[in-house]
Amino acid sequence: MPDATARDVGEFGLIARVVERLGTSPSVLLGPGDDAAVVLAPDGRVVATTDVLVEDVHFRLDWSTPYEVGRKAAAANLADVAAMGAVGTALLVGLAAPPDLPVSWATDLADGLRDEAALVGAVVVGGDTVTSERIVVSVTALGDLGGRAPVTRAGAQPGDRVVLAGRLGWSAAGYALLRHGGVPIEVLVQAHLTPTPPYDLGPALADLGATSMCDVSDGLLADLGHIARASGVHVDVESRRFVREPLLGRAARVVGGHPLDFVMTGGEDHALVATVPPGVLLPEGVARIGIVKAGSGVRVIGWKPTGVGWDHFA
Amino acid sequence: MPDATARDVGEFGLIARVVERLGTSPSVLLGPGDDAAVVLAPDGRVVATTDVLVEDVHFRLDWSTPYEVGRKAAAANLADVAAMGAVGTALLVGLAAPPDLPVSWATDLADGLRDEAALVGAVVVGGDTVTSERIVVSVTALGDLGGRAPVTRAGAQPGDRVVLAGRLGWSAAGYALLRHGGVPIEVLVQAHLTPTPPYDLGPALADLGATSMCDVSDGLLADLGHIARASGVHVDVESRRFVREPLLGRAARVVGGHPLDFVMTGGEDHALVATVPPGVLLPEGVARIGIVKAGSGVRVIGWKPTGVGWDHFA
Repeated sequence: MPDATARDVGEFGLIARVVERLGTSPSVLLGPGDDAAVVLAPDGRVVATTDVLVEDVHFRLDWSTPYEVGRKAAAANLADVAAMGAVGTALLVGLAAPPDLPVSWATDLADGLRDEAALVGAVVVGGDTVTSERIVVSVTALGDLGGRAPVTRAGAQPGDRVVLAGRLGWSAAGYALLRHGGVPIEVLVQAHLTPTPPYDLGPALADLGATSMCDVSDGLLADLGHIARASGVHVDVESRRFVREPLLGRAARVVGGHPLDFVMTGGEDHALVATVPPGVLLPEGVARIGIVKAGSGVRVIGWKPTGVGWDHFA
Repeated sequence: MPDATARDVGEFGLIARVVERLGTSPSVLLGPGDDAAVVLAPDGRVVATTDVLVEDVHFRLDWSTPYEVGRKAAAANLADVAAMGAVGTALLVGLAAPPDLPVSWATDLADGLRDEAALVGAVVVGGDTVTSERIVVSVTALGDLGGRAPVTRAGAQPGDRVVLAGRLGWSAAGYALLRHGGVPIEVLVQAHLTPTPPYDLGPALADLGATSMCDVSDGLLADLGHIARASGVHVDVESRRFVREPLLGRAARVVGGHPLDFVMTGGEDHALVATVPPGVLLPEGVARIGIVKAGSGVRVIGWKPTGVGWDHFA
């Protein structure tokens, strides 16, 4: 049945077809198919976070394949786990979808979730499928700290360096190009559809003594604002420290605006921004972008902010 | 602002108003407000399950208060945790809702989640709020096994007794009355709107050596079917062992049908059905309802099944 729908195969048929795509790992004592999953938490603590993606809000069916939706949904959650200094171990997935959803949509979603999770050694251990008019994908990620203290948003100290792991502005530029409707710049569009968080650098920064850390999902300035507020400090972002990305410049010319708009306020790249004490030797893939001072708020030196990130409901 | 909406207060304003309703517990090392929560998992394993509730599928705004939706969403998940023989420790909640959602709807939902979770000592540790046309509430529950082996659906042995903890059929009868539209029987309607799972009896049955256990969410026959299939056994349900509930009889007369229809096929009471070896002294609140035999499938002695539970997408 290549075109079978959720209605054709029923709830349990759909679940069976999804579950057979999923892998397992030594951390999973009991996977899908029971009332609940059982996952190892060797550290004696478990890190947990949840994100919800809604059709036409977080993804468009004419832009994203279901595989890409799965990748992105997993990435958004696993980046949050990495931002605590932890490593993802398991995902749970809720899928609300219309009865005429093609079974292949659900199995492609599962493949995307599986493949993104595999990047950190995590697996899908459970879920729920229900009917709704629009597709809603809710993902919960669990993670293990491996003995590390969790890195919160609240520990930044004056004198700390602000550092960035991963790309910024690519997702926002890709999104702007998709909305603009002209010839897309493929690598930027792909950055929007399937972000590539620097998972390993979360625990690495924790090991290096990061005093605070945050996943950049709302936009750099908004997320640094969270750190500044939670830590009771001021953050200076030095725009000169950002390498000029020719692709972002091209995108800015197409849609109008400045490439730093994408970098400073664009969300969804799921980069990691952290603060580290002075003198820490930064690992490859991590760059200094600013400094922590006494005070409050976030200032960008060398650029005038034009937005404050993305607020649902606004 | 008594009539403020999600749009009025914004995403972060809404989250702040929800979070201030929530409590904490000694198990929670880091609660809402960071990239992820950190919860104790003293057992070295964590039990995890997720359920999604959709407006007009799982609840109706003209039937349920948001407080009741919160109670029910928490109960559905915490019952799954109990069915493994574990005790809930934490909930994560995804709320997708329209921008014109009253803030009071979200805070009442949070109160319901908090109060139901408090019955087992669990707390809400994190979540996500996003926009969507219809309300979707996704809840993930975490739990701790306290050293017990998880009780799966797969361990039932011929000769085991089938036992039930909690009420059956009340939710289905209440739902039938609501749909029927006549004068409701309040206690049945309330059983539908806010089920009362026998949380403590899950770990208690695990301690007594339960060989399999399952939360009754799809209907007794469907859920015993899961146990029969997973365990490779046949299950006989003895209808004479069910006490005749006058209220179910009244409901059946109003809507047409047989009270045992509610008992055998009605879901959402979140009772626990388990199998225990012969000779186990059953605790108060647990009743024998059948026996496990070699073979396959589920049979009800003394009643003819008329349904097979609830299949989303069907």
